[in-house]
Amino acid sequence: MSMDPTGTVGLGPVLVVGTGLLGTSIGLGLSSMGVPVLLDDVSPTALAVARDMGAGTPVGEGPVGDAEDVGLVVVCAPPDVTGAVVVEQLRRHPGAYVTDVSSVKLAVVGAVRAAGEGLGDRFAGGHPMAGRERSGPTAARADLFIGRPWVVCGEGVAADRVRALARSLGATPVLMDPQAHDDAVAVVSHVPQVVASLVAARLLKAADPAVGLAGAGLRDMTRIADSDALLWAQILAANAGPVGSVLADLRSDLDGVIAALDALAEPGAAVGARSVLARTVAAGRAGRERIPGKHGEPPTAYARLTVLLPDEPGQLGRLFEDIGSAGINIEEFSLEHSPGRPFGLGEVSVLPAVRDELEQSLAALGWRVVG
Amino acid sequence: MSMDPTGTVGLGPVLVVGTGLLGTSIGLGLSSMGVPVLLDDVSPTALAVARDMGAGTPVGEGPVGDAEDVGLVVVCAPPDVTGAVVVEQLRRHPGAYVTDVSSVKLAVVGAVRAAGEGLGDRFAGGHPMAGRERSGPTAARADLFIGRPWVVCGEGVAADRVRALARSLGATPVLMDPQAHDDAVAVVSHVPQVVASLVAARLLKAADPAVGLAGAGLRDMTRIADSDALLWAQILAANAGPVGSVLADLRSDLDGVIAALDALAEPGAAVGARSVLARTVAAGRAGRERIPGKHGEPPTAYARLTVLLPDEPGQLGRLFEDIGSAGINIEEFSLEHSPGRPFGLGEVSVLPAVRDELEQSLAALGWRVVG
Repeated sequence: MSMDPTGTVGLGPVLVVGTGLLGTSIGLGLSSMGVPVLLDDVSPTALAVARDMGAGTPVGEGPVGDAEDVGLVVVCAPPDVTGAVVVEQLRRHPGAYVTDVSSVKLAVVGAVRAAGEGLGDRFAGGHPMAGRERSGPTAARADLFIGRPWVVCGEGVAADRVRALARSLGATPVLMDPQAHDDAVAVVSHVPQVVASLVAARLLKAADPAVGLAGAGLRDMTRIADSDALLWAQILAANAGPVGSVLADLRSDLDGVIAALDALAEPGAAVGARSVLARTVAAGRAGRERIPGKHGEPPTAYARLTVLLPDEPGQLGRLFEDIGSAGINIEEFSLEHSPGRPFGLGEVSVLPAVRDELEQSLAALGWRVVG
Repeated sequence: MSMDPTGTVGLGPVLVVGTGLLGTSIGLGLSSMGVPVLLDDVSPTALAVARDMGAGTPVGEGPVGDAEDVGLVVVCAPPDVTGAVVVEQLRRHPGAYVTDVSSVKLAVVGAVRAAGEGLGDRFAGGHPMAGRERSGPTAARADLFIGRPWVVCGEGVAADRVRALARSLGATPVLMDPQAHDDAVAVVSHVPQVVASLVAARLLKAADPAVGLAGAGLRDMTRIADSDALLWAQILAANAGPVGSVLADLRSDLDGVIAALDALAEPGAAVGARSVLARTVAAGRAGRERIPGKHGEPPTAYARLTVLLPDEPGQLGRLFEDIGSAGINIEEFSLEHSPGRPFGLGEVSVLPAVRDELEQSLAALGWRVVG
């Protein structure tokens, strides 16, 4: 459960270009293991904040301020300039390997290829699947990447360096082809983002009492819609082909649903319309079963129970202490507050075999299990 | 935080028609307060299970087995037969008020109106906003409705009876016009359901490594896609007009996004395409801000911190005990496991003013705060 200093062997001094959330987090992680880190950013303020947080030494300052002997450059620039900055760094540091952390990979590979000069031999792309709702260096964390997949696109020594970087920061390297990566994130990240935004935007036109009926289902479904509009415009634009293709596929199914609903809204038999609706829901359920569970194992169907929690400090502590003392491991947990009520509903997921035992234990200790 | 026996005054004997999850839960709740409950169901097995669980007495059995003096009939039949069953019950019990619990209200009102005979004077629709992923009488709970909104559609004594029923079961009655209710649930429940299913269905065609990159965002976004296909086909069909209308509105925005992505995927300037994408994400964020927070108050922006948790019994208990002993109240909490790693990441939401204090307290107690 920790970062791996032995993974840093051979990384040499690392130059981080772009000291936002990801760049500063990488600098903090490497610095904490004694790897010399140089920092650069077009914003003097972002650079100074990253330095003050201990992420490394700005280029030109201090004892490791000389960028001549850099072994690896990590480009953490905004997605719409990543390709250009990667090419610039490959030219500026002919003895170094270069990687990036942007969430779309083919565009960066394309920029490196287009530049020619054999630059691609020293480049491998990367995409740590970590992020936060907050951004900027002040939100950075040395251990932001622990336990997260870190996609590596490339081969040879360059890819080895990126894998070593990922492992040293506690992430799990996953080797993928750039096109496969971009297709994958279109399905698991970019399309869900667009669609969550489209659903949440419906609330703008809804009446207040309607919005008042919104519950945990809608909140969970639209949580990722709480995102930065300009950053996402860049990401979606950079992955326009794969995202557009998956959305077109989705629209084709949506057209079928709307046609079925139109037929049902009119008088008449609407033959087949109900089966379109049922098949749509069934396909979603089957698709969802493919999402991996904990530890990368196949998904497990957990058993759930819902416990009533008075809304005061210490209640959750007492609950989890009671669950722990029963020797039962909690697989997932979520807490929801009831509208207009001074208490919450805690949903505890456990392995199916121990659910009933847990319910009995909790009931015996005075907890109200309500589901 | 409890059910309200005083609210049962005047309910008289209650007949529950349909002993699935909702009907059996209503029977259990009322019976626990001493209200005489009669049960009926077309399935003798479902009826016997509900009786054995203590939800009430089947019609024709036992001391309150006579349905003559029933004061209120609660129809908990499947959505596609609710209207017909309500009319049948209004005719069979001329001295009783009748309500239902189905998730679409205009169709039921229409069926009662179409029947004529002044039946509508004794009817008010209802919709408790409670449900579970499991269904059937075995999943029933006396306190399923505690803290949930219970929409009441109607007026006069009939509506008073439904409000009393809702309050006695611990729910919060919300008076709404049937059309307003159906429009509201289209936006906050039915459209999110359809769209979550459409997004999850994309995973059916994705390669294994792609699905392996799926994280908490996709899991949360598609959680409601884990639903019963036949039940949802009925609900969507019954609310075809409003759901179709909101989906058509969504499709119009989706068309704009796809056109922008198509323009960006081709060589050329794609003028305005990026602003379509940015406006889409911004509109979603603005819509999401309307979702109410805890206690029905306006939503609060909580501050979050992420804590590394070894995956073993008792760790969550220790964490929450430590948070409780710092006197800090947890507003929201979610737990996520890292792929391929034997630990989880707990996301704690607290009021912004106490976030830094909490982080310092936890760090001092040896917790790894990683975000």
